[in-house]
Amino acid sequence: MITVRLLRRITFALFNSQKMAKSSFEYVKKFEVDDSLLPNTWIVVRLDGKCFHKFSEEHNFSKPNDLRALRLMNYAAFTVLREFNDVLLAFGQSDEYSFVFKKPTTLYKRRAAKLLTTINSKFSSSYVFYWKKFFGEEPLKYPPTFDGRVVLYPSDENLIDYMKWRQADVHINNLYNTTFWTLVLQGNLTPAQAEKRLCGTVSADKNEILFQEFKINYNSEPEICKRGTLLIRKSIFNKNLDKNSNIIVDTHDDMLKDRFWKEHSSLLLNRSKETLMYDGPVTDIVAEQINLIKE
Amino acid sequence: MITVRLLRRITFALFNSQKMAKSSFEYVKKFEVDDSLLPNTWIVVRLDGKCFHKFSEEHNFSKPNDLRALRLMNYAAFTVLREFNDVLLAFGQSDEYSFVFKKPTTLYKRRAAKLLTTINSKFSSSYVFYWKKFFGEEPLKYPPTFDGRVVLYPSDENLIDYMKWRQADVHINNLYNTTFWTLVLQGNLTPAQAEKRLCGTVSADKNEILFQEFKINYNSEPEICKRGTLLIRKSIFNKNLDKNSNIIVDTHDDMLKDRFWKEHSSLLLNRSKETLMYDGPVTDIVAEQINLIKE
Amino acid sequence: MITVRLLRRITFALFNSQKMAKSSFEYVKKFEVDDSLLPNTWIVVRLDGKCFHKFSEEHNFSKPNDLRALRLMNYAAFTVLREFNDVLLAFGQSDEYSFVFKKPTTLYKRRAAKLLTTINSKFSSSYVFYWKKFFGEEPLKYPPTFDGRVVLYPSDENLIDYMKWRQADVHINNLYNTTFWTLVLQGNLTPAQAEKRLCGTVSADKNEILFQEFKINYNSEPEICKRGTLLIRKSIFNKNLDKNSNIIVDTHDDMLKDRFWKEHSSLLLNRSKETLMYDGPVTDIVAEQINLIKE
Amino acid sequence: MITVRLLRRITFALFNSQKMAKSSFEYVKKFEVDDSLLPNTWIVVRLDGKCFHKFSEEHNFSKPNDLRALRLMNYAAFTVLREFNDVLLAFGQSDEYSFVFKKPTTLYKRRAAKLLTTINSKFSSSYVFYWKKFFGEEPLKYPPTFDGRVVLYPSDENLIDYMKWRQADVHINNLYNTTFWTLVLQGNLTPAQAEKRLCGTVSADKNEILFQEFKINYNSEPEICKRGTLLIRKSIFNKNLDKNSNIIVDTHDDMLKDRFWKEHSSLLLNRSKETLMYDGPVTDIVAEQINLIKE
Repeated sequence: MITVRLLRRITFALFNSQKMAKSSFEYVKKFEVDDSLLPNTWIVVRLDGKCFHKFSEEHNFSKPNDLRALRLMNYAAFTVLREFNDVLLAFGQSDEYSFVFKKPTTLYKRRAAKLLTTINSKFSSSYVFYWKKFFGEEPLKYPPTFDGRVVLYPSDENLIDYMKWRQADVHINNLYNTTFWTLVLQGNLTPAQAEKRLCGTVSADKNEILFQEFKINYNSEPEICKRGTLLIRKSIFNKNLDKNSNIIVDTHDDMLKDRFWKEHSSLLLNRSKETLMYDGPVTDIVAEQINLIKE
Repeated sequence: MITVRLLRRITFALFNSQKMAKSSFEYVKKFEVDDSLLPNTWIVVRLDGKCFHKFSEEHNFSKPNDLRALRLMNYAAFTVLREFNDVLLAFGQSDEYSFVFKKPTTLYKRRAAKLLTTINSKFSSSYVFYWKKFFGEEPLKYPPTFDGRVVLYPSDENLIDYMKWRQADVHINNLYNTTFWTLVLQGNLTPAQAEKRLCGTVSADKNEILFQEFKINYNSEPEICKRGTLLIRKSIFNKNLDKNSNIIVDTHDDMLKDRFWKEHSSLLLNRSKETLMYDGPVTDIVAEQINLIKE
Repeated sequence: MITVRLLRRITFALFNSQKMAKSSFEYVKKFEVDDSLLPNTWIVVRLDGKCFHKFSEEHNFSKPNDLRALRLMNYAAFTVLREFNDVLLAFGQSDEYSFVFKKPTTLYKRRAAKLLTTINSKFSSSYVFYWKKFFGEEPLKYPPTFDGRVVLYPSDENLIDYMKWRQADVHINNLYNTTFWTLVLQGNLTPAQAEKRLCGTVSADKNEILFQEFKINYNSEPEICKRGTLLIRKSIFNKNLDKNSNIIVDTHDDMLKDRFWKEHSSLLLNRSKETLMYDGPVTDIVAEQINLIKE
Repeated sequence: MITVRLLRRITFALFNSQKMAKSSFEYVKKFEVDDSLLPNTWIVVRLDGKCFHKFSEEHNFSKPNDLRALRLMNYAAFTVLREFNDVLLAFGQSDEYSFVFKKPTTLYKRRAAKLLTTINSKFSSSYVFYWKKFFGEEPLKYPPTFDGRVVLYPSDENLIDYMKWRQADVHINNLYNTTFWTLVLQGNLTPAQAEKRLCGTVSADKNEILFQEFKINYNSEPEICKRGTLLIRKSIFNKNLDKNSNIIVDTHDDMLKDRFWKEHSSLLLNRSKETLMYDGPVTDIVAEQINLIKE
């Protein structure tokens, strides 16, 4: 018969051995390495959708661009910025998003894995959480995956070139995709034929095809498709509170132009007190914040 | 008037400059570093819930353990194992989960950030995706965040000690939490009083409190709470197909016992052809796979 | 009897197996990691003498400063700059020397270990090679050891602060050492008494001790001791060749003054064509190079 | 007129500002990164001579092997082992040397740069320091440079394969060099002709050339050339002291044979109390230590 006393004795022995055991196992913690990132550098975290070609087909994304998908990406990124005040700005296109931390950030002691995974996790869970908000009745069939990487840029010039690189990429890909899908969907070419037709063409040729054959002026395509989306922190005058309120705005500014960087130079200089006033359209993301401020 | 010719010329100039620009920006790619992990080592990815104390309160988790929450964690981890065949096993408790890759894996060329973020992202998106499956009418209020880290263990002994360390941790935390919440919920102590009461107590004292004051035999608590959950790949005889099928099983084996490691030695030795037969209970996770195999 | 044929057969087998063996072992090369340093950052390599307190005693270094030893350090560093054109400048004091690479250097693909060890090795072997040139009849008793580290500085300001940090260190140490050794050698205090006397004193106190008790004006001490030595690349007008010649000069400039950095701003800007003219004294190091140019 | 008071005031101001300055610069220390190496792995440091082809010509090394040079390499490595007790063994050939640390070493907290540079520096300075001991009247014309790298090996098998890889390399290179230089020096071929003659030949062909044309039996070549030199710690019975003494021995054992690793298994197992008895020849390196022990 198991008496109380025996039971206690067993449990005592069990737990004591485990406690001792635990301390004798704890040496494994020393195998963790310090991955703190070099101070005084720009930390960029870039996320990319894994197998999103397949994902977009299985979820009936319209081609070449699905505005629901782009807006969901933007909203997931907005969720990240709203949570992590140390993220200065973000830029996204297609199934990728780049997050730029404030240069002097000491969040998580600048530990690479911590910064990378919290951004990655929040973005991924938000993508699923807000799916319905953008896709409505189109059901999400399975949880998507985004991979991520951290890159450091020592100078402002390097960071600006990074942003330009990603935005130039939008243009090149989007012109190609727009022409490709127009040839397929309106021109009745097979994907293979469309690919062959575009092989070796330069941008001017693609514009010509769109305009001459389909009366499509590429310049009139939505800016979200041609330029991607930039999320930055600006200020807006709030009538209700009779003062400026800080908000995150979603814009499609042309970062390839030097003018953009002149106008936003205070961003890079970490002059937090100097606010950039926002005078653009009241997007859904902007509206949501103004309403929140009201309340 | 804008003529076609003019339009084309503008677009041509625009895109040409962007294409050139793109190549002149592409140097920023060289700032990415090679983070390949040392070959012939065990790669462990551990995820931890961020601010899950607050998260658990806001979602009415029952105390000390919420079985819905534990099962959701297990299911999200199961989703990871189902997708990534290179993950050998996983162990979870509370709001953390560890994933162990097969030792010789060359997935993503063993690049740390890639391995870390794909696991982290899939887990995070799955947690949201499957929330309703376990929490039913309890709504998910906001997307949760999990951080992650990568640790390398050179020897089998190191890996085994890591697994023991995490499982010993379950015992210690769970006994504390069980006693703490019993004092609060059944003993009507305030949290501060309960904390004070437990201050300085050893395991035996806590068992005594539970048994003497509340007639709770800690050993009878659910194994999922006392030992955490181990997900491993085993084989099961499938009557429908008249052959063995590989499945992922969720168990609560005692990894602090050497017997466990003897029985599972083929796991570590990477003898993939040698299958471990499963003869445990048909859990929901097991049942799901058997049914899938049937179809 | 061993015939030629047999011998050949044995050797053939032996080598064939070794050649095959070699290729089957070569996988170990994959365990080497890529340690390329972040582009667009200042690479600093700092060397430090190992156990030089003991070394200086065993080689009868005069106290507080041994000019032979300082000059040997400078000459070893000069040897490094003469060999590695990608080293922009170097700064040394006591038993340490810092080497700063040109910012855009791609020497050894910026691999950390390669850069670190070649500088370290050349310096160490030069220290022994040129010992006699500076120490004459004082024999070198055993080969000395220098350890080394690599540090990256993203901005010019960071690099300038690094240089200021090392030079401020010279002042603080040298004033302490000068006062300490004056108390010991001229004031007949034991080292312990001298240490106690200086405990808690600020710089002004030490100056006072030197001036009041020993009539020593610290400001008149040799600049090599008070400021350390900076090795930089400048130009000098060469009468024999009737044109400018590039040389490495050893100076004791005050880098704590902003004027220094203004005058040397072209150094940091990597304007290699813009030469800094040298109009300082003809030191031994300078003389040696002018003579070499003559020939 | 500069009064004492004024002087003191100036110095006071100067040093005070420097002291403050120093602390305001010290932030640059935070840019140093933690480069601690993964615990429970074999740390290998390999050094390589830089431009030793040119160095060997300028110092009249005899071809294909210069025994003075090989012995100097061995002696410099011996100096390293004598100083760093945490180095378990070393293996060298031609102008390269590998040093293997005891697996559980915590020397310098396993910091990569520290371990790498102290080995590299001691070796480099020893090479110059002991030059005359082996080269006599042949003067050293300039200080040589060795580069270095650190590699980690998780398992004993990996380490053994590393050692085999380096020793297999000796065989292949030495057979080639021996045949090449025999063709040049005895066969009166130009280097270009010799290279052409050997192009495409396998080991057996080279043995044949040596034996048939020059009556050279490659197997009779000195073992130091064919197998390189292994430095390990063994014990020897010391008659004078009537007990075992630990010494470092230089051998040319065949590490490609499994027998070697069986006989030396205690080395890898870190059984420091289990001594390997030495019964090989009394080399100069061995003799030196026995004599030292006598005294």
